[in-house]
Amino acid sequence: MSDSKLQIIPLGGLGEFGMNSMAIRYGDDIIVVDAGMMFPDSELLGVDIVTPDFSYLEQHREKVRGLVLTHGHEDHIGGVPFLLSQMDIPVYGTAFTLALVERRLEEHDMLSKVRLKAVKPGQRIELGPFKVEFIHVTHSIVSSVALAITTPLGVIIHTGDFKVDPTPTDNELFDLHTLADYGKRGVLLLMSDSTNVDRPGYTESERAVRPRLEDIFNRAERRLVISCFSSSIHRLQQILDLSAEYGRKVAFLGRSMLSVTEIAHGLGLLQIPDSILLRPQDIMQASPSKVVAVVSGTQGEPMSSLSRVAVDNHKNLSVQPGDTVVLSSRIIPGNEKAIYRMMNHLARRGAEIIYGSTNPPVHVSGHASAEELKLVLNLVRPKYFVPIHGEYRQLARHASLASHLHRLGLEKSFILETGETLEIDPAGARKGERVTVGRVCIDSGTIDEVVEDMVIRDRRHLSEDGFVIPIIAINKHSGRSEALPEIVSRGFMSFDDGSGLMQEARQVVARTVESSSSEERTDWGVMQEKIRADLKRFLIKQTSRRPLIMPVILEV
Amino acid sequence: MSDSKLQIIPLGGLGEFGMNSMAIRYGDDIIVVDAGMMFPDSELLGVDIVTPDFSYLEQHREKVRGLVLTHGHEDHIGGVPFLLSQMDIPVYGTAFTLALVERRLEEHDMLSKVRLKAVKPGQRIELGPFKVEFIHVTHSIVSSVALAITTPLGVIIHTGDFKVDPTPTDNELFDLHTLADYGKRGVLLLMSDSTNVDRPGYTESERAVRPRLEDIFNRAERRLVISCFSSSIHRLQQILDLSAEYGRKVAFLGRSMLSVTEIAHGLGLLQIPDSILLRPQDIMQASPSKVVAVVSGTQGEPMSSLSRVAVDNHKNLSVQPGDTVVLSSRIIPGNEKAIYRMMNHLARRGAEIIYGSTNPPVHVSGHASAEELKLVLNLVRPKYFVPIHGEYRQLARHASLASHLHRLGLEKSFILETGETLEIDPAGARKGERVTVGRVCIDSGTIDEVVEDMVIRDRRHLSEDGFVIPIIAINKHSGRSEALPEIVSRGFMSFDDGSGLMQEARQVVARTVESSSSEERTDWGVMQEKIRADLKRFLIKQTSRRPLIMPVILEV
Repeated sequence: MSDSKLQIIPLGGLGEFGMNSMAIRYGDDIIVVDAGMMFPDSELLGVDIVTPDFSYLEQHREKVRGLVLTHGHEDHIGGVPFLLSQMDIPVYGTAFTLALVERRLEEHDMLSKVRLKAVKPGQRIELGPFKVEFIHVTHSIVSSVALAITTPLGVIIHTGDFKVDPTPTDNELFDLHTLADYGKRGVLLLMSDSTNVDRPGYTESERAVRPRLEDIFNRAERRLVISCFSSSIHRLQQILDLSAEYGRKVAFLGRSMLSVTEIAHGLGLLQIPDSILLRPQDIMQASPSKVVAVVSGTQGEPMSSLSRVAVDNHKNLSVQPGDTVVLSSRIIPGNEKAIYRMMNHLARRGAEIIYGSTNPPVHVSGHASAEELKLVLNLVRPKYFVPIHGEYRQLARHASLASHLHRLGLEKSFILETGETLEIDPAGARKGERVTVGRVCIDSGTIDEVVEDMVIRDRRHLSEDGFVIPIIAINKHSGRSEALPEIVSRGFMSFDDGSGLMQEARQVVARTVESSSSEERTDWGVMQEKIRADLKRFLIKQTSRRPLIMPVILEV
Repeated sequence: MSDSKLQIIPLGGLGEFGMNSMAIRYGDDIIVVDAGMMFPDSELLGVDIVTPDFSYLEQHREKVRGLVLTHGHEDHIGGVPFLLSQMDIPVYGTAFTLALVERRLEEHDMLSKVRLKAVKPGQRIELGPFKVEFIHVTHSIVSSVALAITTPLGVIIHTGDFKVDPTPTDNELFDLHTLADYGKRGVLLLMSDSTNVDRPGYTESERAVRPRLEDIFNRAERRLVISCFSSSIHRLQQILDLSAEYGRKVAFLGRSMLSVTEIAHGLGLLQIPDSILLRPQDIMQASPSKVVAVVSGTQGEPMSSLSRVAVDNHKNLSVQPGDTVVLSSRIIPGNEKAIYRMMNHLARRGAEIIYGSTNPPVHVSGHASAEELKLVLNLVRPKYFVPIHGEYRQLARHASLASHLHRLGLEKSFILETGETLEIDPAGARKGERVTVGRVCIDSGTIDEVVEDMVIRDRRHLSEDGFVIPIIAINKHSGRSEALPEIVSRGFMSFDDGSGLMQEARQVVARTVESSSSEERTDWGVMQEKIRADLKRFLIKQTSRRPLIMPVILEV
């Protein structure tokens, strides 16, 4: 085994955004770092969530020693139930990360069957030939770690997601010392978060939102409604602290807000001042100047609490003129319309709305900007570098950011996209064979409901020009079509516009049937293809549209 | 007529984004300001463009005296062909604006039939009881105007789109003097652009992009590919000037880029240095360090020149390692995925990509920020104020921005959404009756291809879960269904997953038919409804999905 090679096998999140997952293999042993999901883009019609295709791991099921999680965001843990439904492996992560995983497993009734093993920063575990040390990093979610993975060929550093926050609200600093120690002793490979590589300078500290929130607390004369991601424990802590200072009670609204704050409080990660909490049902009874409602739903999700508040359809909270609504979050691209629609409703209720890139900021990013990325590159000084977590343009920029390290020991950067592998052996590093990867589209959040690509293609086609279905009844005795074909259609043209056209289309189909030889007429595949082709030509000519055409031949 | 009232009738662009159009009526005379279009959001499946519903104008066709255009952006002129196809009215605008209208009219073969009347800033025209003065303003497109409309009840100022650029590249300053003169003499109503009301401070001057572009020209060692909106004549002028200074030739690529630069040059609005132009077919022969390609397609439109360049499928330009690609434009929300996809392709070709919110900026907005909006409010000091061009949240914020004017003569601000009207008479101003408004969805850019809302609803339904169509053949002699029903389906489940289910579904339909009374069986409407209900229940239970179900009964 001493001549084994090390393989880096990205299963998701490289060259794409979200569903981060990475397999690391040495000989007959594999560990997996993260198993995320992504929310589908609008092109994936009717799909609810997307996970990586884990079939590489299934093929090598007996080699997989465990899953190691860096932090509790959905793009790192959302695929865990789907991976664990395919194989029984232990899962390692910090207590808070595992508590968030437990919530997801409960939804799938899987909690009793899995092995979750809590670790602390600084702790080391052994998985086959891999020794994994967990290194505390700062990020928008608490209890995030980077990984130092010692292999027979050298040390791999995997940063997870991070920023270098010099003043985190929990005073738990990024453990730069440990990173520096590994750097000093020599690192074979660095894999580092590329999400914000396009941003120059440094990402602001989480504490940078405090002056703006303070100003909002100072000026608000009535109810304050603040929305942020429920996993942003740092942000929630600041809101709780300010509420205590300004003598306001705090009510949490929304299922995820309630459960995540309870988890964080239980683990000692969220300090809730004495008797500050207000029950949701008491919000409207309390004096408006003495209340903060902390509400989930920053992205305008249709069923979220904030969306329901916006249309005055929430049982506990009604926004009134003079109230202040704060969106302490970023707008995830693709959600603009939903978020703006929600904001318009809130404005109609007379609320002042505070959001977006204000100065000082009401939200800061959790990902490192260019100068922080350089700091980590310089501390670690790896022999090889693989930028992770980003689209190609971001990976490429991160690689070029590292180019000054070539004078400091960096031999080569590799831009890998999901499915491309890196092989390292004593002779060097190079791209290896591709492995099977892909995405699994899931319809309604249950593990079984996989939507196949062909079905999505059909939906896309249907969404553009609808369908036209000609139905021909053929007499099984005479072999002839005795009546004019029927045509049904939806999403193509309205009945008023289309009825004359449909009459003509029926004639087109009838002529195709009549003009066919009796031999052709016995081969239904041939007949369907001829009808489809003739009708398609007719409809494009008449309407320039290309509905899905699906001829049906009935034997009667 | 002396007791007539003045009516402000927004037909588009208030409480929504895009397709700006405003009717102003006094007694039996109407003028229309702008007739824009919008690009559909992704929920409008298969729709290419959206225009306002002009039926209010059609109903009062004989009263409409003319259409007045503020500037040549699509959200102000894109609906002109559709409005003019419904009524023959004269169109007034600056020469450049009308030249852009002509391009659109040509596409619809309408150019010979319309009356386009070019005006200059400072000029006044009379349309019935309205005197309209055109006032030069600065904006991202040249030859933009605000309107001072003198009515029997007082002066209306309509700003169009603007920013207050102190140093426009063409040195044509915003005509604040004329605005101030009107303000001094007394303005009845101000309607002002709300697009950027959320931005504090001042929008940067167009010249602010020059230092960054200069830096890019300085550092680029190979080909420079710059993309911007083809209507951004200011931006194109700066690119041409820098190219001349740095000894690079300029090639324009893309249909709109070629035609708009030709129009602007012809009107003396774009100065093209001597012999600087390079034919597109000569780009790849010229020395890479001596070329700038100016390419349309900043939004990642699939057929645009830049998208084709990105996948190395453009006949004149191939991007090579070391080339620099500059996106000198904003990302219009909704286009992120397409733009990022294009950027990933360019990065794979080895180009350095410069885009987004860099400092100094590579793009600046054309719309006024909060301080500029206050400047205009303070100069005009109207009696009534109606914020225009924005969603409700923006209109509301703009109205609250004007609240200090209440001590300076402002009697009231009105937040109107499209279809809500304002009435002004000597007794005061108030909201009036609603008028019919709406949107007209157009499929492939021709005036006839209107897509009805019901068709779009069907497409949305189809896009989520596809369709299931049970087909029952009923014997016209026996009144019975003699064979098992057929079921066809697409976009619902793949054949592998669904074939067993479909067999069961056929049985469900057969049972529904069998269990119906002979009376029900003669009423096909009843039968279709029963089959739909039973099959829907069955499919939701089995799959949690809700495909469009459309039973077909054939008499054979």
